[in-house]
Parts: sequence; C-alpha cells; structure tokens
Amino acid sequence: MSKPGLARGTRDFGPEVMAKRNFIFDTVKKVYKKYGFLPLETPSIENLSVLMGKYGEEGDQLLFKILNSGDFLKDVTPEDLEKGYKETLKKVTEKGLRYDLTVPFARYVAMNRQQLAIPFKRYQIQPVWRADRPQKGRYREFYQCDADVVGTDSLICEAEIVLMLHEVFRDLGITEFMVKINNRKILAGIAEAIGAAGKEAALSVAIDKLDKIGKEKVEGELMERGFSEENIRNLQPLFNLGDTADLFSYLKEWLQGSPTGLLGVQELETVWNLVKDLGLAEARIEFDPSLARGLSYYTGAIFEVKALNVSIGSISGGGRYDNLTGSFGLPGVSGVGISLGVDRIYDVMEELSIFPAELNYSSTRVMVTHFNPETLAGSLALLSLLRQHGVSAEVYPDAAKIKKQFEYADRKGIPYVLIAGPEEIAQKTYLLKNMITGVQTPVTEDTLISTVND
Amino acid sequence: MSKPGLARGTRDFGPEVMAKRNFIFDTVKKVYKKYGFLPLETPSIENLSVLMGKYGEEGDQLLFKILNSGDFLKDVTPEDLEKGYKETLKKVTEKGLRYDLTVPFARYVAMNRQQLAIPFKRYQIQPVWRADRPQKGRYREFYQCDADVVGTDSLICEAEIVLMLHEVFRDLGITEFMVKINNRKILAGIAEAIGAAGKEAALSVAIDKLDKIGKEKVEGELMERGFSEENIRNLQPLFNLGDTADLFSYLKEWLQGSPTGLLGVQELETVWNLVKDLGLAEARIEFDPSLARGLSYYTGAIFEVKALNVSIGSISGGGRYDNLTGSFGLPGVSGVGISLGVDRIYDVMEELSIFPAELNYSSTRVMVTHFNPETLAGSLALLSLLRQHGVSAEVYPDAAKIKKQFEYADRKGIPYVLIAGPEEIAQKTYLLKNMITGVQTPVTEDTLISTVND
Repeated sequence: MSKPGLARGTRDFGPEVMAKRNFIFDTVKKVYKKYGFLPLETPSIENLSVLMGKYGEEGDQLLFKILNSGDFLKDVTPEDLEKGYKETLKKVTEKGLRYDLTVPFARYVAMNRQQLAIPFKRYQIQPVWRADRPQKGRYREFYQCDADVVGTDSLICEAEIVLMLHEVFRDLGITEFMVKINNRKILAGIAEAIGAAGKEAALSVAIDKLDKIGKEKVEGELMERGFSEENIRNLQPLFNLGDTADLFSYLKEWLQGSPTGLLGVQELETVWNLVKDLGLAEARIEFDPSLARGLSYYTGAIFEVKALNVSIGSISGGGRYDNLTGSFGLPGVSGVGISLGVDRIYDVMEELSIFPAELNYSSTRVMVTHFNPETLAGSLALLSLLRQHGVSAEVYPDAAKIKKQFEYADRKGIPYVLIAGPEEIAQKTYLLKNMITGVQTPVTEDTLISTVND
Repeated sequence: MSKPGLARGTRDFGPEVMAKRNFIFDTVKKVYKKYGFLPLETPSIENLSVLMGKYGEEGDQLLFKILNSGDFLKDVTPEDLEKGYKETLKKVTEKGLRYDLTVPFARYVAMNRQQLAIPFKRYQIQPVWRADRPQKGRYREFYQCDADVVGTDSLICEAEIVLMLHEVFRDLGITEFMVKINNRKILAGIAEAIGAAGKEAALSVAIDKLDKIGKEKVEGELMERGFSEENIRNLQPLFNLGDTADLFSYLKEWLQGSPTGLLGVQELETVWNLVKDLGLAEARIEFDPSLARGLSYYTGAIFEVKALNVSIGSISGGGRYDNLTGSFGLPGVSGVGISLGVDRIYDVMEELSIFPAELNYSSTRVMVTHFNPETLAGSLALLSLLRQHGVSAEVYPDAAKIKKQFEYADRKGIPYVLIAGPEEIAQKTYLLKNMITGVQTPVTEDTLISTVND
C-alpha cells in the first residue's frame, strides 16, 4: 500500500478553493450569457485524427494519448521497437485528451452546421490537458473559458469582445487591466512597408521585447533574424507610435503602400468606433503592434488582456480566424473568439486579495446541535422547519461534546448555530448563536426563520 | 482530410441539451448545498496506483490508460511483446482517467484529513470514463453527481440521503419514483438464518430476479448456485415479506438467531424512524432485501432509486461503506453516499416530457435589428441600454435581410426582437416584437426596459 498522491501537474480543488473558482466561473458565464452566447460541451476524449496536426509539432507531442483498450500490443512487432516510438504510436493509440476548446468547437461546427443558428455564438467552460512540464502557474489539467462567434466577419463581434472583457474583469473586481489589440493585417502591412513582406512573424517576436530590452537591442535582434539595415530604418515610425496624437492617420500614412496594412488599420479603427457606439465608459484598450499570440491562427484582430500591477501577465487572449473549420471539410467559416485563463485570473485575484469577503465556502446557514438521543427528534424537527423555508441547514450527526459541534460549525464557516438542548426543547424556546458576533438570541419556532434570514 | 467524427461512446452537448442538463445539475447542486454538502473537484487524470485494484479485475480492464509522454517504448523489449500486453502495461502507462468519483474522493480524504471539518460532507459533479462497450444509455464518458458524508457512522446521514433523494426528484418533477433500501447486515443475517452464512452475494443475485422470473425459478437458480433444499425451505419467510403488517417485527423474529441480521434490522428501523422525525411527507421508501449493488463495497445501508412508469430502471444508487480510505493508509473512516446518474435522469425526463417548458436554451431576451450602416449606431445604443439594465441582448452582427434576422431570433428562441429601422431611429420610437404572440409594441428609450421585463 503506497502513499496516495496526485498525478504531476494536477490539483484537487477543495471547498474553499471551489467557492472562489465558482465565483469566477459564474461571473464569466453570466457575462457570456448576457451577450447572447450559448453553452456547448464537447467530450474530453477525441479521436487523434481530430487533434493531431492542429497545434504544430510541439502540440502533437504534448497531447495526452490514450492507450487502446485490450491487447494494445497486438499489432506491434519487434521491428517496430527498432523503428522508434513515433512510428509505432498509431498502432497503440487512436484517441487523445482535448488540448484546447477551439479545435473540438471547430469539429462540432463542421458536424452540426445544418442545425445551428448562424452566426453561432457559443461559450464553453471545460478542462483541457497538456503534457507540458509542470511549473508555477502551469498545469497539465486546467480550465479554459471560451466564447466564439462563427459564421460572420462583422467587426461588431470584435467590439463586443472588448466590451465583454471589460464587463468580466470589472465584475470580478479586477479594475487595473489593459485590453491590447493588434491586427494580423497591420503586422503584415508593417512588414511590407519596411520591405520585408511575409516576415511579420519574425518581426513581431522581436518587437514584442521592446518594453523589456529597449529599442537598440530590438534592432540588434532584428539584424540577427535577417532584417536588413534598410528594413530597420524603415521601421522607425513604429518607435514613435506612442507619441502620435492620431494613431489611425499616422498608421495610414506609414502603411499607405500596403493595401493589406491599410485594411488592417481600417478594421482597427472600425472596432474602436464600434466600442464607442456600444457606450463603453473608460475603455481600457490599447493598440499593440507587437502582439502576435501564435500568429499562424489569426487573420484579423488579435487580443490579449494584461492584468496590471501584478506579477502575472496575460489573463486572456484571442482573435479572428478566417478558416476555423477548413481542416474539417467546411471552408470559409470566419470566426472570432476569446479565451479566459481561470487559473491565472484566480492567481491575480489572490495576489490582489479581491475575492469578495462574503464568499463563504459553506452554503450552510444554520447548524442545529445534537445533545442526546432524547433531544434528537426535537433537533430534527427544527432542521426540517429550516429546510422547509429554504434555509440551508444541517444537524451535527453525532451526540458529540457541544464544544466539538461548535468547532465544526466554526471550521465550516457556518454563521448560525441553533442550540436545542434538553431545557430549550422542554421550553420550546431555543438559542440562536451568531457565530461571528457571539450573540445568542432566544427564538421560538415562530421567530426562527425571520431571525435567521435577518 | 477525413470527415470529422466523435470518439465512440462520447457525445457533444449542444445548447438545447445543455440547457436541460444544466437544469438537472443546478437542481441537484441546490439540494446538496441545502443539506450542507461542500463542493469538491478532483483531477480527471490520476496515477494508476490510485485507481488499479479498486474496481475488481473488470474495472482494471475498463480503465482508460494514458500513454507515457515521449518515448513510451524505451523500456519495452522484444521479450515483452511475447509475454503479452498485461505484463508490459506498466512500462508504457502510469496514469489513467477517473473511473468514478468515490476512489478519488477517498484519496483526497486520506491526503487532506487534517484540514477537513470532520464529518466531511462533500458533493462532486464531474465526468468519469469507462472503456465499456457503448450501447443505448451507456457511454464511455458520462457525469456522476455524488454526495458523501465521511467520518461518522450516524444513521442520521442515511435518513438525510433519503430526504435529499426525495427533494431532488420532486424538484426535477419526477414524482413517480421509489427509494429502495436494503442493508448488507440483513442480507448477511438472512444467509445465516437459512444456514448459508457468508453466501449473501449469491443469494442476492438470485432473489433480485424475483419480480421478473417468479418464485419457482428463483428457487431453481438458488439450487444451481449451490444452495441446499433446506436453505431454500428456510428462505420461505422472504417470499411473504410483502404481506407483513409489521415488517420490522417480522424480520426480527425470522433473524433472531443472527446478531448481524438483528443489527441490520435495527439500523433499518432507525433510518425509518429518523426519516419520520425529519418530517418527510409521503415518503416513497421500500425495503428490498434483494438489493445488492456490487455488494463488496457496502457494509450497511444500500440504496437504489427506481423511476416508475418508464423503461429506464435505476437512476441513483449508493450506500454505507466502513472502510473508504483503508487502501490509502487511513483505516476506520466510515462513510455513506449517493450517486445520481445524470444521463439516466435526463432520459427519464425526456421520456416523461417533464422538462420545464420555460427552459429556453438561449438566455438572450432581446435581439436588436441591424438594418444598415446608418442605423447601426442607433441599434448599438439600444443594445447598450438593454445590457446596462442587466437584460441579455444581442444585435444581429450583419446588415442582412430582416427576414433572415427574424429567422435567427426564432431559431435561437429569443422572445423579443427590437426593430430599429431608419424610420424608428428618426422618430426615436421603436417596435418591440413579441416573437411568441407576434404583437408589436411601440417603445421609447424610456419604456423599453419596463416593457421587456414585463
């Protein structure tokens, strides 16, 4: 018999943590629903044919794969052992665990498009699994909270995502955040404008470090990445972005030679104006030309939310993709979505100590005491009365020492203990103890409910 | 590019199904919380050392096992291929998917007992996985909703489970059900009383079929299972149970030679009385001596709930176990719990057509029309107004034909469409169309919210 342990990179969520996590889930869900998103759940287990090749070679490696049932070795030959595990993989496994919520969503849309109200707005809150090396803040099993709209390329969707993000974070109590926006087309336009068309990926990796390492080192890195001196000279307008009074005019002038770039600026400007039309007060949005987030996915807007004044960085990301379901045989479905990282948001809220104080991990409002076998029927009648009036209540199951019963209530954070000892039962007048103030109030069956609900 | 498909035995839950499933989950959760149970979540992935050997040999086979990451073949030799897969298993996998919620719960209790308020009452609603052959009503990935109390052997817990079951099923609208109760000790006592001590498992399998095949065939099966004619003659009192006026006296007399049996009857009677003390009106409980449910687990009460008048049988089961955490190094922890089968409950409710009619799968209350680029700002202002007042609302993202926009609202079950065409915008008076009655009511910004909330 070995000491039991958790699998590496996984966690239990006990009642206290669950209360806080549920606060986040409930807040997110409420906002998603307010914006017209519908719930979807897909299975944890997917065919590997659905998952493989969607997340790059590294992603394929990080997929948790499920061993075929029964004699998984039946097709494996001694020669296979020599060829190596990659060759043999498909003989022993054909299913894997969900790696994100986007690919299963794409599969769902491809399989069910006839039944869906298009544009289809769905939210999905489920765990995903990655065989990553576990470290602080990175787990092998973690939840994602996604919202996507597919079947339209309307930029209203982008603007609505900006609003949703503001509403979610403000409802959570995270007031200091910044929604960063970029556009793949602007990045492509910049690459074009500086004479390095098609190299936007390398460009974004380098300029992403501007804040950390400064302009000179970014230029050095660009040289290393094969950008010419002329490219870099042409990039100078980027470093003055922060000083411009009119961002959009500035970008339009700079990128006038790139139709793609101009389209990107126009999209960005439209989103900006729509956000205004939607009445967002004190918008916390910022154009960030270095934002890339696995560029390969995104074709238009790219989003990221940073929590400010904390050590944790990005707490949300997403963007526009023009070909979500293409790999499942349904081309031309444009969509835009956002994913919230619950674990990161949790850590931010802990660091800032902003979980609501009234977030009690126990839902029990009253614990009824249990003195002895003679008083038990009386205690149970009180318990029944409380529950009949919708009050969450419990009785201590054993006739233990009263001190122990109070300790239990205290430990569970139960706000009231109803004392029903032999004398109280005889008098039909009980003592309701407020566990926070310590005050004991005499109650009868007639006054119990109103006193508890006070 | 292959056609995408679901892995066998798994399902997507689209918005309409999700609304119904969430109704079940929310109802169950509310009752569990009302009775003082705290939420817990454990990881989907557990070490195989935690899972293996807990569910019998068949269970070990049905565990989904996760292939080790990287070169999973590195320790496999050609000799292993000859030895067969069972021998090689531990070289290629060390983790598996959760098979039920009880074993992970036991692991959690064993690992965290110092931090828990004992008795610990937890509920847990999560999916489990079994590599079973899929068939109607049996899936490879399905949810369980468990509630357990550990750390006390008080029979109040059994009585509370009876009450919770009544409250859950009544809140769901399932009025025709029966909570069947048995007790392992009574089964053992019967075996003892008929001269076949220790053979309660075989006994229960045979008498379980009484309703289906009748008394004579049950006796035949008992003979086949090695019970003597005398055993069977001694068993006759069982067949008259239904006619007894006083069940408990009858059982006490029959089992007077078996202290274990008498203890079981006493437990059963106590639970019966506690249920009464807890004020349960119209209790739907029934003693069923054939109820066994994987007898090996249970040491006291055994529960099962049957939905009546439907083709689906058991929708819940559970019982008392005296050694939950023993295999994790923590002996002597008694507990009792119940598990609700969401999928079965769903099927029962569909068969009976009792899902609430008002269960709209879309939470959107108002869709605002989108006529053209000129009216858009007006539509967005109305949208913003609605949301500011907490009304779930959306705008159709494209300036599509109005017919198409209405179809979308209809398909999504949105109850109101707010018509904001050029004329309405100019007049600042809009038309709110009730999508069920078809009635169009003129509204202004001042009357919109009250009309929608009507």
